[in-house]
Amino acid sequence: MNDLFKLCLHTITTKPLSFQEACQAYAKRGIRGITIWRDALEKLPTNDVREILKDNDLNLVSYCRGGFFAHTEEGKRKEAIADNKRIIEEAAEIEAPLIVLVCGAHPDQSPETSRKQIIEGIEEILPMAEYSDIKLAIEPLHPMYADDRSAINTLHQANTIAEQFNSDYLGVAIDVYHLWWDPDLKKEIYRCGKNNHLFAFHICDWLTPTKHLLLDRGLMGEGCIDIPQIREWVEDAGFDGFHEVEIFSERWWAEDQNAFLDKIVEAYKQHC
Amino acid sequence: MNDLFKLCLHTITTKPLSFQEACQAYAKRGIRGITIWRDALEKLPTNDVREILKDNDLNLVSYCRGGFFAHTEEGKRKEAIADNKRIIEEAAEIEAPLIVLVCGAHPDQSPETSRKQIIEGIEEILPMAEYSDIKLAIEPLHPMYADDRSAINTLHQANTIAEQFNSDYLGVAIDVYHLWWDPDLKKEIYRCGKNNHLFAFHICDWLTPTKHLLLDRGLMGEGCIDIPQIREWVEDAGFDGFHEVEIFSERWWAEDQNAFLDKIVEAYKQHC
Repeated sequence: MNDLFKLCLHTITTKPLSFQEACQAYAKRGIRGITIWRDALEKLPTNDVREILKDNDLNLVSYCRGGFFAHTEEGKRKEAIADNKRIIEEAAEIEAPLIVLVCGAHPDQSPETSRKQIIEGIEEILPMAEYSDIKLAIEPLHPMYADDRSAINTLHQANTIAEQFNSDYLGVAIDVYHLWWDPDLKKEIYRCGKNNHLFAFHICDWLTPTKHLLLDRGLMGEGCIDIPQIREWVEDAGFDGFHEVEIFSERWWAEDQNAFLDKIVEAYKQHC
Repeated sequence: MNDLFKLCLHTITTKPLSFQEACQAYAKRGIRGITIWRDALEKLPTNDVREILKDNDLNLVSYCRGGFFAHTEEGKRKEAIADNKRIIEEAAEIEAPLIVLVCGAHPDQSPETSRKQIIEGIEEILPMAEYSDIKLAIEPLHPMYADDRSAINTLHQANTIAEQFNSDYLGVAIDVYHLWWDPDLKKEIYRCGKNNHLFAFHICDWLTPTKHLLLDRGLMGEGCIDIPQIREWVEDAGFDGFHEVEIFSERWWAEDQNAFLDKIVEAYKQHC
């Protein structure tokens, strides 16, 4: 049975709650970590954000999400880079130590082209991240998102890019949902651990059947992912950060979010 | 512009048509290859099947599908093996040279366990396939099917198993839908070509957005897969067999199937 010291919630998980409601509801249950999704802030002044976090004794784990570097049009790629720089500024203002990168892909070009553009995008923003003391985590996404969300679909690819840049500020985010199926997962987790590139660990579950490619993630224990096994590898590899619950689910968003949060806490204790 | 010499249709692609209707509709358009899905035969006597194929001058390319070796219960695994042996008998009766294997997975066990059971299953049926002069093709399935359809999700895995058995009767089926995203695809296509393990080539397209994990495949040209590029690799690797159109699509099945077949022929000429 897990205690709650390392439990972190992504605001998107309880999307129907406002930022303040979410913080209060997390704190009430003894949750100590929060990852803020950009749209959750709804133009809340920076001071208010910091104050709400402080009032609720919440550690800001990361800011979601940068990336989306790939596009067929050069103008759009430049816009994406400018937007990523704004995200770094925002993260600095709210004192987030880490930004998660969903790297991008475009259905009208090859994954190889998208991958080149992703590397160019990271090259453009990494110096500012380093200067701002904010880490960037490449999150490999499940291959079912290779058309328009990310051309980085395995931990092997993410590790290779992180090693290529060789910066203390560029690493990877491991999300069990995206990577559980990969026969090389254990090996690649140890690889990024050894290089101090393992920056974040996201949890949820894979449902059978999955009814929607994006919005039908399961609560831990509802699906087929052996989360304790992956957690063991991640911790053996040297990771001692938060376990971040990131669930996109129309089904759970339709429920009472306080009851859902109770279930998340219970599921975390039992199935992670 | 491709001619139709190597075009093959999977009966599932035009699911609303009976076997006889499908054969006639294919032949009428100059299609020369057919892959028969088991349920399409609806207990038609073997002689009738062979006669319909002959009347319509159709080459039987493969029989779909065996496999599903993975299960938590030993009894169910034995049933699967017995069923695969019946499939080999059926294939022999209709004179199919190849059976495609969707290898299986079970959400209540790890992918590693499923993989071991798959290898055990192949071990059980391969001698009968060899004796019957029928080849078996391991079809790696997209990772989004790793929970309950196949724990073999990359061509690398399929190639490794084929090499391990080292039989002229065990190879792989390459389906662009399952493998297009894989950064190692080219390398692995050349690998199986070199080993004479490249037994089948399936085509369709990946839609953006994809609305259903199973039944929303696109017609060639509707989606993001660079089919000519993958075909080039496959042919460079020594494959000279049929190009098999395998589309599961509620959307296309709801259309008039003759009009759909005309579109398939056109799409094959233009986009493959």
